[in-house]
Amino acid sequence: MLKEAIFHRPKTNWSYSYDQKTIHIRLRTKRNDVKQVTLFYGDKYNWSVIGTQNTPMKIFAQDELFDYWLVAIEPEFRRLKYGFKLQSKDETLWFDEQGIHETEPSSYNLFFEFPFINPVDVFTIPAWVKDAVFYQIFPERFANGDPSINPDNVEEWGGEPTPYNFFGGDLQGVIDHLDYLEQLGINAIYFNPLFEAPTNHKYDTVDYMKVDPQFGTNEKLKQLVDACHARGIRVVLDAVFNHSGKHWPPFVDVREKGESSPYAKWFHVREFPLEVREGVPSYDTFSFEQNMPKLNTEHPEVQDYLLDVARYWIKEIGVDGWRLDVANEVDHAFWRKFRDVVKGVNPEAYILGEIWHDSLPWLIGDQFDAVMNYPFTEAVLDYAVRNTRDGKQFSDLAGYLLAAYPQQANEATFNLLGSHDTARLLTLSKGDKRRMKLATVIQFTFNGTPCIYYGDEVGLSGDNDPGCRKCMEWDLKKQDVDLLAFFKQLIHLRRNHRALRDGTYEVAHASAGSPAFAYIREADGERFAIVLNAGSRKASVQVEATLNSAQPQIVFGDGEVTLNKKGLKVSLQPLGYSIIRL
Amino acid sequence: MLKEAIFHRPKTNWSYSYDQKTIHIRLRTKRNDVKQVTLFYGDKYNWSVIGTQNTPMKIFAQDELFDYWLVAIEPEFRRLKYGFKLQSKDETLWFDEQGIHETEPSSYNLFFEFPFINPVDVFTIPAWVKDAVFYQIFPERFANGDPSINPDNVEEWGGEPTPYNFFGGDLQGVIDHLDYLEQLGINAIYFNPLFEAPTNHKYDTVDYMKVDPQFGTNEKLKQLVDACHARGIRVVLDAVFNHSGKHWPPFVDVREKGESSPYAKWFHVREFPLEVREGVPSYDTFSFEQNMPKLNTEHPEVQDYLLDVARYWIKEIGVDGWRLDVANEVDHAFWRKFRDVVKGVNPEAYILGEIWHDSLPWLIGDQFDAVMNYPFTEAVLDYAVRNTRDGKQFSDLAGYLLAAYPQQANEATFNLLGSHDTARLLTLSKGDKRRMKLATVIQFTFNGTPCIYYGDEVGLSGDNDPGCRKCMEWDLKKQDVDLLAFFKQLIHLRRNHRALRDGTYEVAHASAGSPAFAYIREADGERFAIVLNAGSRKASVQVEATLNSAQPQIVFGDGEVTLNKKGLKVSLQPLGYSIIRL
Repeated sequence: MLKEAIFHRPKTNWSYSYDQKTIHIRLRTKRNDVKQVTLFYGDKYNWSVIGTQNTPMKIFAQDELFDYWLVAIEPEFRRLKYGFKLQSKDETLWFDEQGIHETEPSSYNLFFEFPFINPVDVFTIPAWVKDAVFYQIFPERFANGDPSINPDNVEEWGGEPTPYNFFGGDLQGVIDHLDYLEQLGINAIYFNPLFEAPTNHKYDTVDYMKVDPQFGTNEKLKQLVDACHARGIRVVLDAVFNHSGKHWPPFVDVREKGESSPYAKWFHVREFPLEVREGVPSYDTFSFEQNMPKLNTEHPEVQDYLLDVARYWIKEIGVDGWRLDVANEVDHAFWRKFRDVVKGVNPEAYILGEIWHDSLPWLIGDQFDAVMNYPFTEAVLDYAVRNTRDGKQFSDLAGYLLAAYPQQANEATFNLLGSHDTARLLTLSKGDKRRMKLATVIQFTFNGTPCIYYGDEVGLSGDNDPGCRKCMEWDLKKQDVDLLAFFKQLIHLRRNHRALRDGTYEVAHASAGSPAFAYIREADGERFAIVLNAGSRKASVQVEATLNSAQPQIVFGDGEVTLNKKGLKVSLQPLGYSIIRL
Repeated sequence: MLKEAIFHRPKTNWSYSYDQKTIHIRLRTKRNDVKQVTLFYGDKYNWSVIGTQNTPMKIFAQDELFDYWLVAIEPEFRRLKYGFKLQSKDETLWFDEQGIHETEPSSYNLFFEFPFINPVDVFTIPAWVKDAVFYQIFPERFANGDPSINPDNVEEWGGEPTPYNFFGGDLQGVIDHLDYLEQLGINAIYFNPLFEAPTNHKYDTVDYMKVDPQFGTNEKLKQLVDACHARGIRVVLDAVFNHSGKHWPPFVDVREKGESSPYAKWFHVREFPLEVREGVPSYDTFSFEQNMPKLNTEHPEVQDYLLDVARYWIKEIGVDGWRLDVANEVDHAFWRKFRDVVKGVNPEAYILGEIWHDSLPWLIGDQFDAVMNYPFTEAVLDYAVRNTRDGKQFSDLAGYLLAAYPQQANEATFNLLGSHDTARLLTLSKGDKRRMKLATVIQFTFNGTPCIYYGDEVGLSGDNDPGCRKCMEWDLKKQDVDLLAFFKQLIHLRRNHRALRDGTYEVAHASAGSPAFAYIREADGERFAIVLNAGSRKASVQVEATLNSAQPQIVFGDGEVTLNKKGLKVSLQPLGYSIIRL
C-alpha cells in the first residue's frame, strides 16, 4: 500500500458530526490500492470496548489519484476514539495519530479522537435548501412592471446591454411574472442587489436600508416576498458587505473630511487624503475599483451597521437569506457574527457565499451554509460544453469535490452553470442546445441545489458582462419553447424524486478517453441512472447497475436501453442523454 | 515525482497569515523526491504580474515520508493568488487548485487563493509567551504557608499522597517561596485549580468566584499575583469549564428539583431524575465521573456566568491567562466567545488548552494561543527516556509537528515533560538522572514554551496520580542539588539566548537506528548546536554545520569537539549532551 497516499486528520472534511448524533469518519488511500479498511473505535473513557468495536468502511468517492472511504458512527456518549486497519492482498497496516504502523498498536492512547458532538458546532443547513430550485434575477433586466419609476435615459426593452445603460426592470415586473416562475417550477429566487446604488448592477451601494427607487420601495419588496411565500417561493438577497459604493454617506464623509471624519476607520485607508495614483487607490477596494471602497468589517460600528442590515431585511421584509458578495475577502470573525445574527432572527435563513475557489474554511458550520459552486460549473462546462474533460476526468473531479467537504455541504452546494459574472451557457455552447441541455441534465441530477440564471430557460444568449445581462425575453414568439419545456420537465422531475436531488451517488460508467459518463442516484427505494454522451458520435454506454425492475424506463431524454448481465446498455445520440428509472 | 504525496490546501497550516503583512505558503512532497519548488504568484486582480513573480521555496521540515516546503510572501495589497512548479531531475509538474499538471496551466484562474489578510483573523499570540519559562504548581502540594487555614485531617508534609488526603499547601506558601522561584529563573506560573472545591485537586468546582479557603482568599491571590508581577512572573489559572463539581449550587438545585429547576438546562441531562445506573450517570459528565457534570456551554446563562468568571480573575485579580481543562470537549463556539472576552479584557492574556491530541482546529487564531503539547512529550520520552524511538524517528516526529501547525503556534506551543496527570519524569527515567537531563535539554532548546512540573527540579519522583502529586521537597538536605543547578543553568541559558527559544531550527544529525541526534538553532547572529546521545554507549556524532567561529564552545553539558570538513564531530558519554555555540 502506498503510505504517502494515506490521509486522515480529525475535523473539517475528514471527521465531522453529520447531525447531532452521527459522526462521519473518512480516510484517503491511493486509488485501487487498498482492499479493505476497518475502523476500530470506542468511547474514549471506556477503554475496554476500544478494539472490540469495529466496522468496515466503504469507498464513497474516487478521483484520479485516490479512493475516499467513509463510515458513519453514532457513539452512545457523543465522543469517539478511533484508528484504521488497512488491508491489501498481502499487507496489513494500522494508522493512528502517531502515523502508519506495520503491527497493531499496543496502546490505544494515540488513536484519533472526535472529542464530543456539541450541537452548536454541528454544521446544520436549513432543510429546504436541498429541495430548492433557484432562479437568479438580475433585477434591472428581468421585467419592467412600473414605467413610472423608470430611470432617466431608460432604453427600449431588449436593447443591447452596456456596462452603463438602463432598461427599467423593477420589482413590480417580478411580481407580474410570478405565475411564469411558478409554472416554470422554481421555488427560490436569488436577487442581485436591490438596494439603492447608481449603477445598473447596484454593487456600489448608497443605502443598505432602502430598495433602489428604480426598482420600487421597501414596501414593494415586502409585497413581492409575501406573494412569493404564498406560492412557496423563497427569496434570497445579495449582501454586498465587502465594500460599499463611493456615494455611501460614510465614505462621502471620509472623502470630504479625511482623517477627521468620524467614519475614517470604517474603511481600510492606507494613506490620507483619499486619492488614486496610477490606477491604485490609497485605500483598499474591491479589486482596484475606486468606486468600491472596502469596508472595515472589524470596526464595531461597521459591524453593528451591517448586522442591523442583515437583521432588518429578514425580520421586517421577510427575506429568506443572503448571498454574500466577495465573501472570502471579508474576515471570518465577521461572518461568524453574521451567522449568529441571521440564524438568530430566522434559523431557516440561508447563507450563501460567493467564493469561486476552495471554500472549506467557510463550510465547517460556523459561517456559510453553501458557496456558489464554480468548481462544479467549470467541471460541467469542461465535460459537456468544451469537451476538454472526458467522462472519467469529470467523474474524478466530481469525486474530489465530494471528498473535499462535509456531506451536508455537498448536499446543499449551490450549483450554477452561469451567472451575471460569466458568459451564458447557450453562448458557451456556441448555440448548440444539445450541449446546453447535457450540462443542465447534470446540474439537475447532481447533489446540491441547482440555480437557473434568468432567461437561460428561454434561450437567452450573451457573452461575459455586459453581454450576459440582456433583458429577459417576454415575447412568446421569441422564447425558445423547446428549451422552456425541457427546463420545466427537468425541474418537475427533480422536485418529484428525492433520489435525483438528495439520493446516494455512484459512478456507473466512466472511462478514460471516452465522452460517455453515467451515474446512479438512489433514495426512497427509487433508483435512477443518468447516462450522458458528450461526444459528437453515437455512443453505446455500458451502465453497471443492479436493476429494480425488469423493465427500466427512460423518464427523460431519449436513447435505447438493452439489458445485460452487468446492468444495461444505453445507446445515445451524439450529445444525447437519458434519465432511466431502474 | 510521486503525485500522491503532493499536498496543499489553502488556510489552516498550509497557507496562513503569519502576521499582518506576511503570508506563509507551504507544500508537501514525498521525502527526497523533488529538487526544487517555485511559487508563482501575484495579485488576484492584477493579472499581468501573475506568472512573472516567482520565488523558490525551501524545505523547512521533514518527516518519515515527506518534505515540507515553505516560503513567506508580503503581498502589497494583502491578497494573493499562487501556484506551484515542482522540478525533479527529469520531470516538471505544475500544481494548482485543479490538481497536478504536466504542462504549465494556460490560465491562472484556477491558481490557489489567499483572499485577503484581515487583521482580526491573523493568529496572534502574546509576545511574552515565547520568552516564558513556566512552572506548574499543584497548590495543595507546593508549600504550606498558613497552617491556620489547614483543612481538617491535614497530614504531615511529605507523607504519601493518596487520591483523598490533604497536606495543607496554600497561596501563602507560594508567596513565601517566590525568592526560590525567581532564583530558579522561571517567569510564569501555571496553577492547577484554586477555586473552592472539596477534593485536593479542585477539579470539581463549587464556587468559580472564590479561592478555596484552604488555599486563602481572593485578596491573598491578588497579593500573590502582584508579588509575582513585581518579579516579572506571570500567573495563569486553571479554568475548569467543561464540567462543574457536584456541589456547585446550580447542579445541587437540579439534583433536588429535577426538570423544574431553573438550572435544568445548564447541564446535559439525558434523562430525569439524575441517577447513576451501572456506573453510567443519566447526565453527561467528564468521563463517567458522576461528581463532574458536564456544563451546557451553549446555554446563554451558562456562557454569561463562565465569561464573567473569565473576566473577573483577569480584570480584578490581574491573572495573565487561563489554562482550559478538557478543552476539546467544550464547543468551539464557546471558546471563540471566550477568546473575545479574555483578549478584550487584556490583549496580552494567554489561552492554553488542555488537548492531548492533534489540535489544529483550535490553533488557527480564533480560539487558543497554545495547547499542552503532549505529542512532543511522548516523542521526547520515547527518544530520551524509553529508547523506543531512535534519533531519526524523533527528528521525523518533530518535523511532522512543525508542519502540522502554523509557525506562530509552534513558537508558543506548551512543551511539558510531565504534569499532575502523568508519572514524573524522574520516575519514567527509572531514577536515571542522565535520561531526565537529556529530555530536559531538548525541552529547553526546542521551539515552544517549556514548563517545569513543580519539584522535578529538586528530584521529586512519583508514578501516575496520586504518586505524581507528592509534597514539594523544601528540606535543603533532601533536595537534589545537582539537578537544581542543572535546571537553573539551563533556564538561564535559554532566557539569555533568543536562538534557543525562538531561533530557526535545522536538523544536523539524525540517522536510522542511531540514538544520536543533533540540531541547530539560530537567531540574532548566534548559532547553537544541540547534540544528544540517548544511547547507553559512548557516541561520536557528526554534526553538519557551517561554523561561525574557529573555536566552537561547549556552553552546557560535556563532550569533546573536533572540527572537520562537514562541520564538527562531538564525542559524547552514554546519555550525554552538549550545547555548543558555533
